[in-house]
Amino acid sequence: MIDFRSDYLEGAHESVLALLAQHNMRQSLGYGEDAHCARAADRIRQLIGCPEADVHFVSGGTQANLTVISAILRPHQGVISATTGHISEHEAGAIEATGHKVLVLPEQEGRVSPQDVRAMVQAHYDDASFEHWVQPGMVYISNTTERGGTYSKQQLTALSDTCRELGLPLYMDGARLGYALAEEGTELTWTDLPKLCDVFAIGGTKQGALFGEAIVVVNEQMKKDFRYIIKQKGGMLAKGWLLGLQFEALLEGNRYLELAAQANRLATSFRDALQAAGITFLTPSNTNQQFPILDNKALDALKDKYGWSTIKKINDTHTAVRFCFSWARTQEEADQLTQDVVAAVKAL
Amino acid sequence: MIDFRSDYLEGAHESVLALLAQHNMRQSLGYGEDAHCARAADRIRQLIGCPEADVHFVSGGTQANLTVISAILRPHQGVISATTGHISEHEAGAIEATGHKVLVLPEQEGRVSPQDVRAMVQAHYDDASFEHWVQPGMVYISNTTERGGTYSKQQLTALSDTCRELGLPLYMDGARLGYALAEEGTELTWTDLPKLCDVFAIGGTKQGALFGEAIVVVNEQMKKDFRYIIKQKGGMLAKGWLLGLQFEALLEGNRYLELAAQANRLATSFRDALQAAGITFLTPSNTNQQFPILDNKALDALKDKYGWSTIKKINDTHTAVRFCFSWARTQEEADQLTQDVVAAVKAL
Amino acid sequence: MIDFRSDYLEGAHESVLALLAQHNMRQSLGYGEDAHCARAADRIRQLIGCPEADVHFVSGGTQANLTVISAILRPHQGVISATTGHISEHEAGAIEATGHKVLVLPEQEGRVSPQDVRAMVQAHYDDASFEHWVQPGMVYISNTTERGGTYSKQQLTALSDTCRELGLPLYMDGARLGYALAEEGTELTWTDLPKLCDVFAIGGTKQGALFGEAIVVVNEQMKKDFRYIIKQKGGMLAKGWLLGLQFEALLEGNRYLELAAQANRLATSFRDALQAAGITFLTPSNTNQQFPILDNKALDALKDKYGWSTIKKINDTHTAVRFCFSWARTQEEADQLTQDVVAAVKAL
Amino acid sequence: MIDFRSDYLEGAHESVLALLAQHNMRQSLGYGEDAHCARAADRIRQLIGCPEADVHFVSGGTQANLTVISAILRPHQGVISATTGHISEHEAGAIEATGHKVLVLPEQEGRVSPQDVRAMVQAHYDDASFEHWVQPGMVYISNTTERGGTYSKQQLTALSDTCRELGLPLYMDGARLGYALAEEGTELTWTDLPKLCDVFAIGGTKQGALFGEAIVVVNEQMKKDFRYIIKQKGGMLAKGWLLGLQFEALLEGNRYLELAAQANRLATSFRDALQAAGITFLTPSNTNQQFPILDNKALDALKDKYGWSTIKKINDTHTAVRFCFSWARTQEEADQLTQDVVAAVKAL
Repeated sequence: MIDFRSDYLEGAHESVLALLAQHNMRQSLGYGEDAHCARAADRIRQLIGCPEADVHFVSGGTQANLTVISAILRPHQGVISATTGHISEHEAGAIEATGHKVLVLPEQEGRVSPQDVRAMVQAHYDDASFEHWVQPGMVYISNTTERGGTYSKQQLTALSDTCRELGLPLYMDGARLGYALAEEGTELTWTDLPKLCDVFAIGGTKQGALFGEAIVVVNEQMKKDFRYIIKQKGGMLAKGWLLGLQFEALLEGNRYLELAAQANRLATSFRDALQAAGITFLTPSNTNQQFPILDNKALDALKDKYGWSTIKKINDTHTAVRFCFSWARTQEEADQLTQDVVAAVKAL
Repeated sequence: MIDFRSDYLEGAHESVLALLAQHNMRQSLGYGEDAHCARAADRIRQLIGCPEADVHFVSGGTQANLTVISAILRPHQGVISATTGHISEHEAGAIEATGHKVLVLPEQEGRVSPQDVRAMVQAHYDDASFEHWVQPGMVYISNTTERGGTYSKQQLTALSDTCRELGLPLYMDGARLGYALAEEGTELTWTDLPKLCDVFAIGGTKQGALFGEAIVVVNEQMKKDFRYIIKQKGGMLAKGWLLGLQFEALLEGNRYLELAAQANRLATSFRDALQAAGITFLTPSNTNQQFPILDNKALDALKDKYGWSTIKKINDTHTAVRFCFSWARTQEEADQLTQDVVAAVKAL
Repeated sequence: MIDFRSDYLEGAHESVLALLAQHNMRQSLGYGEDAHCARAADRIRQLIGCPEADVHFVSGGTQANLTVISAILRPHQGVISATTGHISEHEAGAIEATGHKVLVLPEQEGRVSPQDVRAMVQAHYDDASFEHWVQPGMVYISNTTERGGTYSKQQLTALSDTCRELGLPLYMDGARLGYALAEEGTELTWTDLPKLCDVFAIGGTKQGALFGEAIVVVNEQMKKDFRYIIKQKGGMLAKGWLLGLQFEALLEGNRYLELAAQANRLATSFRDALQAAGITFLTPSNTNQQFPILDNKALDALKDKYGWSTIKKINDTHTAVRFCFSWARTQEEADQLTQDVVAAVKAL
Repeated sequence: MIDFRSDYLEGAHESVLALLAQHNMRQSLGYGEDAHCARAADRIRQLIGCPEADVHFVSGGTQANLTVISAILRPHQGVISATTGHISEHEAGAIEATGHKVLVLPEQEGRVSPQDVRAMVQAHYDDASFEHWVQPGMVYISNTTERGGTYSKQQLTALSDTCRELGLPLYMDGARLGYALAEEGTELTWTDLPKLCDVFAIGGTKQGALFGEAIVVVNEQMKKDFRYIIKQKGGMLAKGWLLGLQFEALLEGNRYLELAAQANRLATSFRDALQAAGITFLTPSNTNQQFPILDNKALDALKDKYGWSTIKKINDTHTAVRFCFSWARTQEEADQLTQDVVAAVKAL
């Protein structure tokens, strides 16, 4: 059985394990103050063209999100997010547990629009008793989004401009950043990120690492004392060098984007073949997550051979599901899946 | 340079890396619901002789502590800890960030005494306005303690009895549990733990794993919904099987205690040799942490060759330091250190 | 100018001030442990026919809500509320500041329906990764609702039954409880409340007191240590007797409901006259809050003489507003308002 | 029986009730945006000679403390306080419930010393792993202290200078501010406060009001959005004008200080008479709280006629107690008490 339920079902890319084996018995300083973290941080600063950025490594995505958001907001502020935002739906109230409301906006392919952000902020201050409402204090986005969508350079620029005009820091959760930067035809590149975001995360877990995310703090005002907050929230690994080492391996040459591009290619060729077979999708996607709407009987026929996530019941006979292609999937596996899905649908 | 600053400076025991390499590319379910976690949990239940215990795995020690404590306490309650307790001193306010006060008691070799716990609880309820004080709600201990001390079976039984009489859940942080259970001559064993504690943690990070701690929930009332809280606090690893797999490797046969016993042997022979040379210690210890009081000039002579932690200035000429022997240290390294320290002191 | 913006614009009913003047210089124990609080609590227990209920007094409504909710929920749980619920919209994130998400449901005249509660709970447990979502932990309702609606005895019974079946404590915010119990024709009475709710609040501020709310804890499991949490959240007044004394005065005989009934009568006769004049309403209401939809020009003509709250822009020419009739309004004032509003509309 | 247990056992000074009666039925805007609050704030700004200060009114002292502290601190910071500080001992963990540790220092008559503050800050940054400790983020003091002590102008200036040098905001809890400013011989005046403190509170509850404290925000950086946080923490009274009105009455002319001076005079003449009779005190005090150490048999003889607080058991025969003289006590009552205490001691 090949599982397409998520992109975190395997371990790490071989380059990660090789580097780990090489350094395993060498002594490294704890808590991220080691040479691996220093080198990985330097590599990130080089990639993004921002020598003054602060780079931290934490153990997971929820950690990254709750640490960044609680570091930025004052007590009366909330974080704006799409309804589908990971912090809104998938983190068991991690943000609220730090004292802050998630202020939700409608999503387009998982994206937040500048218009909706502006409207929410205006509605807030237009209210006669605005001090009785949670104040919008920052914007959270994910790129790739939870719906497989991405921000084009133009879209991210427009959102960033609006945030700056409104005084709202912009944080981009990049748990699947590689898939976005490797999207075919995108103009968005590493060097745009520090220009457009105040803080962003570069995902490891879903991009070839065993675990771990890099947090890049660009905004000068948000740098101070960040490590205290990582420690307090439980995100500071004793053997922090494990995190640095993994990013060293993944960011060597163009590996990070190549792994993602390969997954995107498999996913989009799967998509194209299904579309050619007349299958519709819940939402368009050029990245490694695909959301076809399939007949329940076809799903039933496929279920012993493949795994996927159920997203939404469409009607009594059809369900929207997600097939997620990890960096570890091969062309052969993708072709087999494509063939089997199309066959199952045609067999109805 | 050999660094004795801590026991988390190396990677993992070779058995861990071998098992990881073997399973790296196999797909495993996420979030701890995989076969590795199931097997490691079964092995723990078998070791402790408690088939009904719940076992969870989290990424680190601060995670384990803040998750357990916030899961147990009601909002108005605090956690009793020794002044030297990890939660009191070393976690950047992680417990307070979940809303709870740490109520500190004096320590003896890092231990909390039943008498002090009882006195604190009595003082609380004796106060006419006790509802204006934080209510003692549970007891936190570490074993091995932060001072290298351990609880004998008798001491832990007495504390446990007192806690039960007072209605206080007892949580034992076992970040260095192996060193305590492997202490020469101790009567405390794996099977005592579920009888005496409501919840306890089994450390991985300082005991041969890359990272990770196991949380064992024995008390029936504390089992419900525990996974939600792990998720909320950011301790639920996407690739949770990495944690289970490491404990599988470490708990195979008697490996966990053998690794610890080896470190204890090196540490206590170092201690004995220093004592024979007339060097005194801040606090007695039979485990892998040793706290000699050394002349600053001797330390100066040693500092290019060895690393250690500074614990406390004793006077203008002497400092209490900590040498921490990890599972990865060899007899040869320990002998060399011993010889050099004794020589440095004699050379004064 | 007569302000109908809210029902908390005046001070207290004369009986409150009289009792205060009488006792002002007598010494009373602090923090709610005085004879006034004892008598007021006894009176409440008598009214509701529940001798075993615990009664506490706090300084305000947000205090009452955040104290009750944080006392009931475990960290991973959220509170279900209508979108219009006071805790969802009007308390500046007070609930989130205690660590809990507000889980919103659609409202009908401000009410939550049993069907929606059940559907939310089912959707939660139907999700494969339900532990990644905030667990529904209790239900918050207000009665009278923020939209002037009330729960009939049948509606409240149905909701209560559903909550019990689902294991969800039910908390009723009674900031405007009097207006609900005094609604013409309602079958809901004081003695129904402890049978149907686990905890409920009896409002003072909007019902004739200077300030203060009574919290009635019926559920045995929620009684323990409640005073600690009141103290911790800042709701425990040093001169707590001020709160007890006010409820003593207001709950004497049938005063509490009579004051509310008078306000309801004025409000509903205003409503009837406007309806007779062809004016429509945003939402039906039999209580002291009325939500007519008025032409902006009419509002402009009225604005120097009367105050009201703007609720919602309906279209370019019409706005839904709220006229709130306090216990302190007279028939004469209400008649004048009615006449002026009808005239303003007719003059268009 | 005359109760000297505290200074909040009576209602309000007659001027407060008179003003309340006069305005009770007039309509006032809610939430502190009324004319009474505006006038009281102006009066405070005039008294302290600081026209740019922001003034807010909240319902009680714990409210004031938790609101100010949570508004100032970032998540990883704690508040420095004397061990006897109200926030450390008497607020049921209110500060921790907002996520922050109270960092305690030894007290001298309840005061914090500049030397101790400096030493704590230095110890923090001297630690190699300082990011694992809670960062000292501000200083909390009370004046009058919980031990009846006060800060002289020189002491407060020295502490303020140290705080500014160290970058620590200084917050003064003035629940008993009047007694400090009215201390015989003190050089500290209203106009010193905004020069030396970043934020301070002016107490109402213990100084002649029914309830309520004024918060004065001097530091420009702490002014922004303060009302949101008051609302969120439940301290924003719907009928906020009740708070403004009380301060209007109390701050008329020199009433606030005269009421306090009268209480101080009664207390210090009581003290002098006891000292003349050979009775010793736990701690010196020139203000309305006195802490004699009395024979338990004498206390037993007095207990039907007077109330007091037990502070500390001194030995098997003696106890330190507190007699607290409110603004409402008369010369006659104080004389009677003095006479009876001295007689009880002499009768032994």
